[in-house]
Amino acid sequence: MSGSKCARLQGARLQQLLDSVDSILFDCDGVIWRGDQPIPGAPQVINLLKRHGKRVFFVTNNSTKTRRMYADKMSTLGFDVTEQEVFGTAFCCAAFLQTACGLRGQKVFLMGSQAMRQELEAVGIRQTGVGPDHVSGGPGDWANVPLDPEVRAVVVGFDQDFSYMKLNRALQYLIQKDCLFVGTNRDTRLPLEGGRAVPGTGCLLQAVETAAQRQAQTVGKPSPFMFDCLASQFGVERERCLMVGDRLDTDILLGSNCGLKTLLTLTGVSTLEDVEGHEKSGCEERRKMVPDFYVESIADLLPALQG
Amino acid sequence: MSGSKCARLQGARLQQLLDSVDSILFDCDGVIWRGDQPIPGAPQVINLLKRHGKRVFFVTNNSTKTRRMYADKMSTLGFDVTEQEVFGTAFCCAAFLQTACGLRGQKVFLMGSQAMRQELEAVGIRQTGVGPDHVSGGPGDWANVPLDPEVRAVVVGFDQDFSYMKLNRALQYLIQKDCLFVGTNRDTRLPLEGGRAVPGTGCLLQAVETAAQRQAQTVGKPSPFMFDCLASQFGVERERCLMVGDRLDTDILLGSNCGLKTLLTLTGVSTLEDVEGHEKSGCEERRKMVPDFYVESIADLLPALQG
Repeated sequence: MSGSKCARLQGARLQQLLDSVDSILFDCDGVIWRGDQPIPGAPQVINLLKRHGKRVFFVTNNSTKTRRMYADKMSTLGFDVTEQEVFGTAFCCAAFLQTACGLRGQKVFLMGSQAMRQELEAVGIRQTGVGPDHVSGGPGDWANVPLDPEVRAVVVGFDQDFSYMKLNRALQYLIQKDCLFVGTNRDTRLPLEGGRAVPGTGCLLQAVETAAQRQAQTVGKPSPFMFDCLASQFGVERERCLMVGDRLDTDILLGSNCGLKTLLTLTGVSTLEDVEGHEKSGCEERRKMVPDFYVESIADLLPALQG
Repeated sequence: MSGSKCARLQGARLQQLLDSVDSILFDCDGVIWRGDQPIPGAPQVINLLKRHGKRVFFVTNNSTKTRRMYADKMSTLGFDVTEQEVFGTAFCCAAFLQTACGLRGQKVFLMGSQAMRQELEAVGIRQTGVGPDHVSGGPGDWANVPLDPEVRAVVVGFDQDFSYMKLNRALQYLIQKDCLFVGTNRDTRLPLEGGRAVPGTGCLLQAVETAAQRQAQTVGKPSPFMFDCLASQFGVERERCLMVGDRLDTDILLGSNCGLKTLLTLTGVSTLEDVEGHEKSGCEERRKMVPDFYVESIADLLPALQG
């Protein structure tokens, strides 16, 4: 990476960066943990950053957990975190529907998890749709499937009960021009240990968009909503904020889109080869995915925080 | 449509066109029938064309019926048709897997209908996957779902049992680089009476492609395979062949792609406004969707065939 814009973060440069920021946003999976195991050293880094007076936030595109569930998991793994510091897409999607769409007291068709249902209910939004929806009859029946006249929006998150009938029901709502259309995120795969992966929300959203011939608004990274959500609530100054993530196309792009400093950690999805590919592309859009700095692991921040 | 390339087909021009062709390909839904009702006059047109010595074929992207099922339906509706004249994507997909992919005696993962299973079996291709596949466990279980080691291809057609687990299983097969990937067609919606519609195979295929980060080969219109399939079997001369359809993006584009004369009928999906949009676009790709001629209904062919 000689001559690269993306510099390894260590020594004086590390100390300088930490001095220049007040708030640090961390992606979760691949950054502070992998599956159910913390990245070695990550809990100490987070806890020491807070002890040094930094404000720390967690921003994740995963829509299968509530803030409460994340805070509990983090606590179990040794992170000293409150639920107010967690911004997952289940919570942020509910916040978006409430604030940007004005849907408090209204009802949505939810293709998503029980966690999403809970976060929606917490802001006074009712839902129909959670759980299995099996097909019966033929095309004529599907086109005339009963719709809930109160539904104002179709909301798509990760849904392990995704089925043809759910896709069809979403289409029947979205044929109504005034029905809003919101997705949590566009991640195409959920990466797992050993290079394995399962289909992500992006696949489900793509199917619904193709049927509806409409594009959903999405709240997850790299859309700026998640940052705006926490920034407005906590008065975060973007010039003094660092985004730390393992994915160039979501985490680093969010940081670039919002004018934050960006740090790639190599414990997850993206590699330095990916960085180089974007850097050499000569494409403005792809160059936004080049981070300012990289570390092998966020444990590399420890030397600047200890002693 | 004054000054348009697309002329209304009637009178001397109609007689001239019929004299200039030996073979006529008809799309089915929206052209010769709508749902379970024949387009008025369509059975007479088809039967008279055959009596006048024209060869008639039926090419449909619908993958939910076998050739036999189509011939039975046509016979019930008054069309004098044999199953050898019907080219649906269930049959053509099986033919593609057999001839282009060399999969006779092999096994595929089928996301599709019982009709597709039957057409596959008829050419000696076994399948796994037809029917419901419900989710259980969590991401770790999904990523390690048992795969059939004999499977050589993932085949996607219309599947009313489409589910997250099926999507996941398709992804796990397609992560294997040597696994072939074939789709019947890309129609995003199945249009029904009264402007209603349900999601088409294109939505399901898009979800699988997004997960797999690979593009499927498709056999349906506008891909030339369906024409090549019938042309090679019946020795059809493309210069003396007419394609009749109600959709510009599948039927008419197939005709243009294969060098056939093209006729749009207005009893289905596309309109003269759509034609004009393509014609005025100045885009080479879109101009391929402008038909040579149009009729209000294929019943407009009757005057040239009677008396």
